[in-house]
Amino acid sequence: MPVVAREIHLKSRPSGLASRHLFSQVQTTLPALASGQVLVRNLFMSVDPYMRGRMNEGESYIAPFEVGAVMDGAAVGLVVESADSQYFVGDAVSHFSGWRDRALLDAANLTPINIERVSIQAYLGALGLPGHAAFYGLLHIAKPKAGETVFVSSAAGAVGSLVAQIAKLKGCRVIGSVGSEAKARWLRDELGVDVVINYNDEPDLEVALRRAAPEGIDVYFDNVGGAHLEAAIAVANKFARFPLCGMVGQYNSPAVGPSNIYTVIAKSLLLQGFIGINHLDTWADFTQNMSSWITEGLISTRETIVDGLDSAPEALMGLFSGDNVGKMLVRLG
Amino acid sequence: MPVVAREIHLKSRPSGLASRHLFSQVQTTLPALASGQVLVRNLFMSVDPYMRGRMNEGESYIAPFEVGAVMDGAAVGLVVESADSQYFVGDAVSHFSGWRDRALLDAANLTPINIERVSIQAYLGALGLPGHAAFYGLLHIAKPKAGETVFVSSAAGAVGSLVAQIAKLKGCRVIGSVGSEAKARWLRDELGVDVVINYNDEPDLEVALRRAAPEGIDVYFDNVGGAHLEAAIAVANKFARFPLCGMVGQYNSPAVGPSNIYTVIAKSLLLQGFIGINHLDTWADFTQNMSSWITEGLISTRETIVDGLDSAPEALMGLFSGDNVGKMLVRLG
Repeated sequence: MPVVAREIHLKSRPSGLASRHLFSQVQTTLPALASGQVLVRNLFMSVDPYMRGRMNEGESYIAPFEVGAVMDGAAVGLVVESADSQYFVGDAVSHFSGWRDRALLDAANLTPINIERVSIQAYLGALGLPGHAAFYGLLHIAKPKAGETVFVSSAAGAVGSLVAQIAKLKGCRVIGSVGSEAKARWLRDELGVDVVINYNDEPDLEVALRRAAPEGIDVYFDNVGGAHLEAAIAVANKFARFPLCGMVGQYNSPAVGPSNIYTVIAKSLLLQGFIGINHLDTWADFTQNMSSWITEGLISTRETIVDGLDSAPEALMGLFSGDNVGKMLVRLG
Repeated sequence: MPVVAREIHLKSRPSGLASRHLFSQVQTTLPALASGQVLVRNLFMSVDPYMRGRMNEGESYIAPFEVGAVMDGAAVGLVVESADSQYFVGDAVSHFSGWRDRALLDAANLTPINIERVSIQAYLGALGLPGHAAFYGLLHIAKPKAGETVFVSSAAGAVGSLVAQIAKLKGCRVIGSVGSEAKARWLRDELGVDVVINYNDEPDLEVALRRAAPEGIDVYFDNVGGAHLEAAIAVANKFARFPLCGMVGQYNSPAVGPSNIYTVIAKSLLLQGFIGINHLDTWADFTQNMSSWITEGLISTRETIVDGLDSAPEALMGLFSGDNVGKMLVRLG
C-alpha cells in the first residue's frame, strides 16, 4: 500500500518578519523502497534559529530552502520499513529530513542512535547540533579557565543552557542573559548560574552586565548579536574570547554592527564565528563527554514541545519571540 | 651648564578633529644627570595613529596623555652625556621619550640599536613597533599560505606597506587599498602588489574589492575599520582571518560597526584585535627576519619626514588625512 507523507513546504520567501502564510502543508505519496533505502516515521523534528536564514534568498553557509519544495532539518524517528541490511524495523535513527512525518531515506543518510539511557529527542538537543555547538564553541574557541567569568546570551535556549552548564563544570563564574523571569528562575535555581540578567528588565544592558561582572568578562558566547554583543565588548577584559554562534536578534531585521568595534583592538579581543558542522572531527569527543554528563546528572535539559506538524511554522517563529525554554521541538504523529 | 629641552605638551583634549591649538611648546631646564642616567639628543621621533586615542580622556590599552604635561612616544637619538657604565657618548639608542629634542632617561629605559647597516630611523618603522605589528599580525594571527589572497588597507602606510611585502614574500596574492595615485604607483611599481584599489576613485568599495578578488580574500589586515572592514567581510572566503591592527578612519569620529557582522558567523571568520606590545616574545624572531629582509633588499621602505619639533602636531594630524607615504617621522634639531 502506498505510504503518504505529510510535508511542510516553503510557499514564498519572507520580507521582514516570517509568518504562517509563507508555509503550506502538502501530502506526498512516497515511492516503494529501493534497495538500500529505509522508511522512517519521524517522532520529533527540530526547529532552529538558523532556519530563518534559510528562508531568505541567497547562499549563506547552507543553501536556502527552495520555494515550492519540502523544507528540511534535523529529526529523529523509528524505522518502519527497511530495504537495507543495517537497519531493522524499530531502530531509532536521526537524520536531516525533518518538516515531514514520514521520510524515505538512503541508509547512508541515517545515523543510528542509542536511546537506552537518554530520550530519543535528546539527539536533537544536548546530544545533537545544539549540544555540539555549545561544546565546540566554549571548549575549543573560548577555552575558559577555572575562575574566569563567562557571559552567555539566550542562556535558557538550547545552546545557551548547555554553555552555561559546561562553563560551571569547568569552574567558571557564569552570567546568563534571558528574556523572562521563568527562564531566569530555571537558570538560578536549577542550573546554578551565578547571575542572571533579564534583559527586558534592564534599560541599559551594558550597565546591567557591568553590575553582574564588576571584574569584567573573559568569555562571551554570543547567540543574539546586537546590543548584547556591544555590551559584552564594552565589559570584556583584555584577551577575552567571543565564540559567535548565532545572532538570533538580527535574523528578522537589518543587522547593526557593534559601534564599539575599535575596542576589539584596544582589548585584544578574539571574535570567532563558527558553524558546528565544520568541526565534526570533535563529534566523537563531544558525544562521549555529553553522554556522561547527562547520565551522571551533571547537565540537565529542558524542552519546549509543540504538538503536530501543522504547528512547526509557529514553533520556528516562536524562537524569535523567546517562546522556548530549552530546546524547541515539534512532536509528530 | 644646564641643558634646556624643548617639549610638546598637550594643552587640552580635542572634541572631534584634533588641531594645532591643542598643543603647546614648552622649554624645560633638565636637572643634572644622576648616576645611571643618560642624556639623549633625539634625532627622530615617531607619530603614530594610536596617539590620537591617547589625546582623549579615558583608559584604552595605554594611558591617555596628561593635559599640561609632555607627550611621549617612540624616538631615536644619540647619547650626548652618560652617567651609566653601559652607555657612551655617540651611542645610538631608541626609547619612548619622544615629543622633545632632548631626553634625560634612566639607562633601563633605553635600547641600544645597531645602525651600521640600516638608518637610525628604521628603528621607528620597519624595525620598530610598526614593523613588529605587521610581522606579528600577518604571520602569527593570519598565518597566510602561499597562493592565498591577502587584502590590506592603508597599504602605503608604515604597517600596511610591510604587511603587503611580507605577504608577497610568503607567496600570496596581495591587494592593497590606498587613497592616492602616488601611493598606488609605489605599491604597484616598486613593491609588486598585485592589485591596488584607490578608494577615492571607487564609489563602492565592496564592488571594487570583488573585482580585485574574484575568488574572495583569505586574509584582511585591517588598519582603518569602517567601510573597508565591511567590504572585507562581504568578500571574505570561509575561514578567512582578520588581524585587526588599527581603525584609523574612526579615531576622529564616532565609530560605526560592520552592518554585516552576522556574516562573521556564516563564513566562520576570525577577527582578532591585537596590540604588538603584548607579544614581545616574538620580538627577537621579528628583528632577525626583518633585518635580513631589509639588508637583502627584499623589503623596501619609504618615509615621509617632517622637519622640526614644532611640526610634530601637524605630522600627527596628517596621518588622518593620508599625508604620509610609508612611515611618518619628525626630524628633530
